[in-house]
Amino acid sequence: MKALLKTQPVRGAELLDVPIPEIGPDDLLVKVQAAAICGTDNHIYDWTPWAQARLTLPMIFGHEFAGEVVEVGAAVKGWSVGDMVAAETHIPCLQCYQCRTGRQHTCEQMRIIGVHADGAFSEYARLPVSCAWKLAPGTSPELGAILEPVGVAANGLFKDRVDGRSVGVIGCGPIGVFCGQLALAAGARQLFMTDVNAYRLEMARRVVPQATVLNPLQDDVQGLVAEATHGRGLEVVVELSGSQAGTAQAFDLLAKGGRVSLVGLPSQPITLEMTNAIIYREAIVYGSTGRLMWDTWYQVDALLQAGAFDPLPVITHRFPLEEYAAALELTLSGEAGKVILKP
Amino acid sequence: MKALLKTQPVRGAELLDVPIPEIGPDDLLVKVQAAAICGTDNHIYDWTPWAQARLTLPMIFGHEFAGEVVEVGAAVKGWSVGDMVAAETHIPCLQCYQCRTGRQHTCEQMRIIGVHADGAFSEYARLPVSCAWKLAPGTSPELGAILEPVGVAANGLFKDRVDGRSVGVIGCGPIGVFCGQLALAAGARQLFMTDVNAYRLEMARRVVPQATVLNPLQDDVQGLVAEATHGRGLEVVVELSGSQAGTAQAFDLLAKGGRVSLVGLPSQPITLEMTNAIIYREAIVYGSTGRLMWDTWYQVDALLQAGAFDPLPVITHRFPLEEYAAALELTLSGEAGKVILKP
Amino acid sequence: MKALLKTQPVRGAELLDVPIPEIGPDDLLVKVQAAAICGTDNHIYDWTPWAQARLTLPMIFGHEFAGEVVEVGAAVKGWSVGDMVAAETHIPCLQCYQCRTGRQHTCEQMRIIGVHADGAFSEYARLPVSCAWKLAPGTSPELGAILEPVGVAANGLFKDRVDGRSVGVIGCGPIGVFCGQLALAAGARQLFMTDVNAYRLEMARRVVPQATVLNPLQDDVQGLVAEATHGRGLEVVVELSGSQAGTAQAFDLLAKGGRVSLVGLPSQPITLEMTNAIIYREAIVYGSTGRLMWDTWYQVDALLQAGAFDPLPVITHRFPLEEYAAALELTLSGEAGKVILKP
Amino acid sequence: MKALLKTQPVRGAELLDVPIPEIGPDDLLVKVQAAAICGTDNHIYDWTPWAQARLTLPMIFGHEFAGEVVEVGAAVKGWSVGDMVAAETHIPCLQCYQCRTGRQHTCEQMRIIGVHADGAFSEYARLPVSCAWKLAPGTSPELGAILEPVGVAANGLFKDRVDGRSVGVIGCGPIGVFCGQLALAAGARQLFMTDVNAYRLEMARRVVPQATVLNPLQDDVQGLVAEATHGRGLEVVVELSGSQAGTAQAFDLLAKGGRVSLVGLPSQPITLEMTNAIIYREAIVYGSTGRLMWDTWYQVDALLQAGAFDPLPVITHRFPLEEYAAALELTLSGEAGKVILKP
Repeated sequence: MKALLKTQPVRGAELLDVPIPEIGPDDLLVKVQAAAICGTDNHIYDWTPWAQARLTLPMIFGHEFAGEVVEVGAAVKGWSVGDMVAAETHIPCLQCYQCRTGRQHTCEQMRIIGVHADGAFSEYARLPVSCAWKLAPGTSPELGAILEPVGVAANGLFKDRVDGRSVGVIGCGPIGVFCGQLALAAGARQLFMTDVNAYRLEMARRVVPQATVLNPLQDDVQGLVAEATHGRGLEVVVELSGSQAGTAQAFDLLAKGGRVSLVGLPSQPITLEMTNAIIYREAIVYGSTGRLMWDTWYQVDALLQAGAFDPLPVITHRFPLEEYAAALELTLSGEAGKVILKP
Repeated sequence: MKALLKTQPVRGAELLDVPIPEIGPDDLLVKVQAAAICGTDNHIYDWTPWAQARLTLPMIFGHEFAGEVVEVGAAVKGWSVGDMVAAETHIPCLQCYQCRTGRQHTCEQMRIIGVHADGAFSEYARLPVSCAWKLAPGTSPELGAILEPVGVAANGLFKDRVDGRSVGVIGCGPIGVFCGQLALAAGARQLFMTDVNAYRLEMARRVVPQATVLNPLQDDVQGLVAEATHGRGLEVVVELSGSQAGTAQAFDLLAKGGRVSLVGLPSQPITLEMTNAIIYREAIVYGSTGRLMWDTWYQVDALLQAGAFDPLPVITHRFPLEEYAAALELTLSGEAGKVILKP
Repeated sequence: MKALLKTQPVRGAELLDVPIPEIGPDDLLVKVQAAAICGTDNHIYDWTPWAQARLTLPMIFGHEFAGEVVEVGAAVKGWSVGDMVAAETHIPCLQCYQCRTGRQHTCEQMRIIGVHADGAFSEYARLPVSCAWKLAPGTSPELGAILEPVGVAANGLFKDRVDGRSVGVIGCGPIGVFCGQLALAAGARQLFMTDVNAYRLEMARRVVPQATVLNPLQDDVQGLVAEATHGRGLEVVVELSGSQAGTAQAFDLLAKGGRVSLVGLPSQPITLEMTNAIIYREAIVYGSTGRLMWDTWYQVDALLQAGAFDPLPVITHRFPLEEYAAALELTLSGEAGKVILKP
Repeated sequence: MKALLKTQPVRGAELLDVPIPEIGPDDLLVKVQAAAICGTDNHIYDWTPWAQARLTLPMIFGHEFAGEVVEVGAAVKGWSVGDMVAAETHIPCLQCYQCRTGRQHTCEQMRIIGVHADGAFSEYARLPVSCAWKLAPGTSPELGAILEPVGVAANGLFKDRVDGRSVGVIGCGPIGVFCGQLALAAGARQLFMTDVNAYRLEMARRVVPQATVLNPLQDDVQGLVAEATHGRGLEVVVELSGSQAGTAQAFDLLAKGGRVSLVGLPSQPITLEMTNAIIYREAIVYGSTGRLMWDTWYQVDALLQAGAFDPLPVITHRFPLEEYAAALELTLSGEAGKVILKP
């Protein structure tokens, strides 16, 4: 089969012919119908320190995907050839304290598809059944492929209630836009979204027209939030930029007693004036990673089935797998929403 | 001033001329602009055992009201003549354990306006400032008058999250209809509403057209819910009928791990097969009374300001105060939504 | 091997020689070292309607047990021959909504060891690894055998916080006594325990000497609780009697805003005056069954390791398996704490 | 009366004769029987930037106090001359969103006794009844005087459950020691406490002998915690040092999914490697300030009444008010627990 592999510890990747994966008794074999590019894939392609610290080469990368089950492991129950499947990318050990207390997504021996095990920028992929989410027949593979990042947004946003709350989203990449959509779907009262990238601001305005979309380099975000909230500030802020400025602003915009979810991964340490940012404000700060297995998936599915939001307009480009280089350069540029590769 | 008083321990009431109330240092004097009829008022008018056990006559009744502040007590801060006000009807002592731990609405020395203290079916009413909710200038007095029962719905529904959940409402009187509206405003996925009264079923269908509105005497409610929820049942049920059949059905419809809020007041003991209804199901049951002061009011206000729902269509009739008898007979008949008296 | 089987649909059981169970790839084979008698076992032995509705004969019964792993299924990870193991008795399907959202103990296809699958009143038992709790080397098998009912107490009690709360336990059988011990271990302020059985009252006084142990047939429980709590009532009540009187009293003793956990299984419908018992009181009622897998086990283990309580004194009698009849008659009499069978 | 005033914007204070305060209709006049020195008082005495930014001189300082009510304001209910009272030091406006939703301690117009209004290093003090906590007759005034800082510890620690959890306390000043005591009283399984000050380490070992008390400059705290928790880390950490090193260590010691309460006020910005400290760990961080009014007071009172802990041994020194300079120098030195001034 065709597969996109990282073979060398340098920038780039190679499209090679490799054998179709063999599956174990607890696995599914999936014919990949759509795979989405994640920031992680850019780290791998670019061979950043993040990637260097994690990957053992060679490795097929790509982990946001959906497709059709074409083979079912001997010990697997409840799955059949022909089922449509989307992938959860965190492989839990199912043995540790985290896995046994409802927190498989923070497994103490966590492995990640496309990072620690071969991924899905390929015609076929092996998927442990513990990572398989069954899609309703007829679900669009592209929708299936982006459920994983939609779940990142949902896990960050839904740490507690949103209904009737004023919500801020710092960072208007795809996960930020999903976050804004989910906030409205769950009854948020007011929604502010910020970014400094013109493409992303435009995307947020297009996909979430009810939001107030602002650029902190040009707009008085704090003043506008204060005005709209009678000086109270936002009750919920989701930080997706991973930047010093974005993280500091998340707290500046926050109401007393409000909560911030930190989702964006800073590549540098962050400096905060804790006394006012968090302590006197009695803020609650949630680190958020991955998706609750499987609460987040059910929650997203429920809102999708209710027609409460539609994440597909966040997909802006599609490429055949052969044009992987163009696709990865595009996502790196920031001038795209979700980008789909079709094997 | 004109006031509707319960003077005799028999069915009925009298419209009399009485002095305008004198207010204390912690009170507001309110020119009543709209008062809504509550089931409690029917109990008082009809002089049921519930009323007999509580009222000391004579008493001006009526407690769901809004109007304009015309006098401000000497010790009151933050209020001015001309402010628009809606009334919270539970008068807290502010001294007891409940009042001092965020639960004024279950005060150990609770008194209720229109039951233990003169109410608002009158031209003017005395309102303790601890029961005063300031309305934005220009708010419709009719909207102000029904915020109290909207809050009953909100307190019952919002014991926990609703977003993405399947919700059932047993009883389609005004509070049930508010409940359905609030559930949708807060992101509920599916909404089932039931009643046995044709008028109320029609009102629910009119005001909450997205709901599946069913009559358990004619429809296979449990079967339809099972079908719509893949056999899981509803995650949230609010019981407003106060009846044996309604309460039993609330649990029959409930998913494992789901929650039931008991809001409707049964006049008879209720018999439940607890083992299956509650225990094996690990249901959570919330008794719910009144409104959280003032969390519920802020929550309702936030959803109103967001335009997420509009409770005004539940008001079906208006009467001048003089026609109180017709108004009270109408509400008793069940052939009405909220009924407003205008002093 | 020797095994106690229910073979006939009449009162009684038979001790027979049967083959050692064969295990599947996901199972452990356990040499049973101690098994405790549960009320369920009395239902089976007596062949009550509860048992008739559930068992397909023949069936080895008994489900509270611990022992040594003597064989490990081919697909099992993390277990070795020689490990000490205690059994969780709820067999989850691991596929349904409940299982996939942290609620395996309310699995939609729940099966129970000793009820729907052969149990452990036998020399050896097959245990699905999804029901296996690893004991520290050297743990007493008797302690292992009673962790399951200790967990029933913990799941009922720990629905929310206990520290600094006043707690009531209705029913002083073994689970009630565990409940009292756990409440003190978790920082309860005051502890009231009630029963009507002299043996159980004495056991509660012996094992939980800090508790106020009362007999509602003789003591003014409500008056004493009111006096001790300044009239507020108890913040937490765990109902273990499953009786009409016990359930009604649970609410009579309850503070406004307090919580009742229903754990004891009523064999008859229960009638409650809901308006005052639950609604005006804004009580929270939790149905509670089994144990959270595996949160409850970790929680109990943590308190055991801290030396915060010792459940072993609740074991009052030991019998060799051959004397099953005497053991089962004893538990039925109510004149015992936990009774251990040794195969 | 004698009173200790800050009169000049320089280091120091003056003991002067001033009139006994006049009280308003909502106030109590208290004969101060014991006042404890807080770090805030050192800031005021030393005239640090923190104090310069807040105080308008002249001002009587001191805010942790208890005494006897000698006069009751005209509008006050429920208080009598002769009652014993302890002071909550946060004066709520009772009008704002925070005050009206159970968060008086984060009032949007917060004023603090001894900072924004005359305090209690004096023979008499004016106390708004909204800040008055009634003590049982016969309560030691010294106990009353330290309930405020005990409450700081309780508010920080009890953001969620402690029972069966492993707990760490960073900083062994008086609030840290109270925190350790409260954790054990509420059923914590393991308790680690750290400081770098020899006096405080010794105080922690003396008052909380069950704790593992460590000095991070000498001990491998992270290694010892890892060993004691099977590599999982601590489930609850309370940060009281306000230092860069202490804050970073709080997260290094934390289990996945664990929580950190930030209580100590950093005087400098803090730099954290958020990705690993908080995000991948899915940590929850709580800013914590003051005490929940009045939940925290009731919670502390419940544990005191149960005899679950005794904070009095944390009081190490008493001085007559005249020796204020020696007392303040002592607290500044770090060579003291709580220090009491007796007017």
